[in-house]
Amino acid sequence: MSGIEIERLTQLLAKLPGLGPRSARRAALHLLKRRDSLLVPLAEALTEVQQKVTNCTICGNLDSCQPCAICADPSRDGSVICIVEEVADLWAMERARAFRGRYHVLGGTLSALAGVGPDDLNLAGLVERARAEEVTEVILALNATVDGQATAHVVADRLAHAGVAISRLAQGVPLGGELDYLDDGTLAAALRARRPA
Amino acid sequence: MSGIEIERLTQLLAKLPGLGPRSARRAALHLLKRRDSLLVPLAEALTEVQQKVTNCTICGNLDSCQPCAICADPSRDGSVICIVEEVADLWAMERARAFRGRYHVLGGTLSALAGVGPDDLNLAGLVERARAEEVTEVILALNATVDGQATAHVVADRLAHAGVAISRLAQGVPLGGELDYLDDGTLAAALRARRPA
Repeated sequence: MSGIEIERLTQLLAKLPGLGPRSARRAALHLLKRRDSLLVPLAEALTEVQQKVTNCTICGNLDSCQPCAICADPSRDGSVICIVEEVADLWAMERARAFRGRYHVLGGTLSALAGVGPDDLNLAGLVERARAEEVTEVILALNATVDGQATAHVVADRLAHAGVAISRLAQGVPLGGELDYLDDGTLAAALRARRPA
Repeated sequence: MSGIEIERLTQLLAKLPGLGPRSARRAALHLLKRRDSLLVPLAEALTEVQQKVTNCTICGNLDSCQPCAICADPSRDGSVICIVEEVADLWAMERARAFRGRYHVLGGTLSALAGVGPDDLNLAGLVERARAEEVTEVILALNATVDGQATAHVVADRLAHAGVAISRLAQGVPLGGELDYLDDGTLAAALRARRPA
C-alpha cells in the first residue's frame, strides 16, 4: 500500500526500544511530514554518530574523543574506578553527580542463559588498570539482579590480587520508598545493613 | 558527559511520537550497540525515503512512484473517490481491505485554533477530480471529531455542483463495542441510524 522505502523505514524504527509496529508507522509519517526539521537532521545525526562515536579504549564509555572526556579529564580522581555494566549505567551515575572518579564499562553481565562468559566482557583491561599504582579502590556498581551480582562476584575474584580495596553499592530502601510497597528481599537487605541513627 | 553527537541524536529521537527524553536516550544507546544491523541501515533508510518518497500529485498519498501505486493501478475503481485527512488514514482504509476505489488526501482538517483554512488543504485538485466524467461518488471518510466533521461540511459544500453523489462513513457501535462503555453521542447516533434487522 505504501512504498517499499517507507515499509523498510517503519520496520527499522520498530526495532527501537519503546516503539512497536504501530507507533513505528506513526513515527515514519511524522518524519515525512517534517522532512527539513526532523528527517534530514536525524539522518545526518545518525551518520555523524556512526562516524565519530567510538568506545573509549580505556574505560569502554561512548564518546567522540579518544580517550573519552572522563578518562581525559585531569580533574577526576584517578584512584577510584567504578565498574558498571553498560554505558547507560555510567550516564546514570554521572547524572547523579555523586562520583568524581573514573569508570570501567563491562559491556554486559555474565549470563549462562545468553551464553555470555568472562571472555565476552571487558575484563582483561580492568585487571591491568586496577594494578596501576594510583588506583586504590574499585567500586562494583552492577545492577542488583541475579546476573549483575554473579558478575560482581567474578569481577571481585579477578581483582583479589590487584592490591585494591573492593566495595559495592549499598542496598536498602530507595529514597521516597514506602516499606509497604517494597519487596521482601530489599527490606531484609536494608534491615541487615542497618546503621546507627 | 556523553559526546555532543550522541546528545544531538537523543534530542532528535525524542521528537518522534512515542519517545520521550528517557526512551530516546535508551534508543540512542540501542542504536550504538547495533551499528551494522540497525544504525547504518536506519540512516540509509531515512536518506532513501527523503530522496525517493514524495506526495502523489493526484491524490496526496506518499509513495516512491509518481503517480502513486494506487492512482496508477488500472484495476482500481475510478468512479469512487474516498476523501481522508491524512496518509495514515489512507493506510488504515487499505489495511481494512474494504475499498477498491481511489483516494484524496486533504493533508489535515480545517481548524480555527491552529489557523488552518480551506486554502491550506489539498482542496483545489479535488473539485477538478470530482468533475471528471468517470467519477460518480465521493466518500467523506474524515475523523468523527469536531474538526473532521466541520471539514466534511466544507468539502461537501465545495462539491455540491460537481455532479457527484456525496456520502460519508456510517456512525454507530464499533465491532465488539459494549453499549455500557459507549459514549452517549455514539449511542444516540447509532439509534438514529438504526436499520431493519
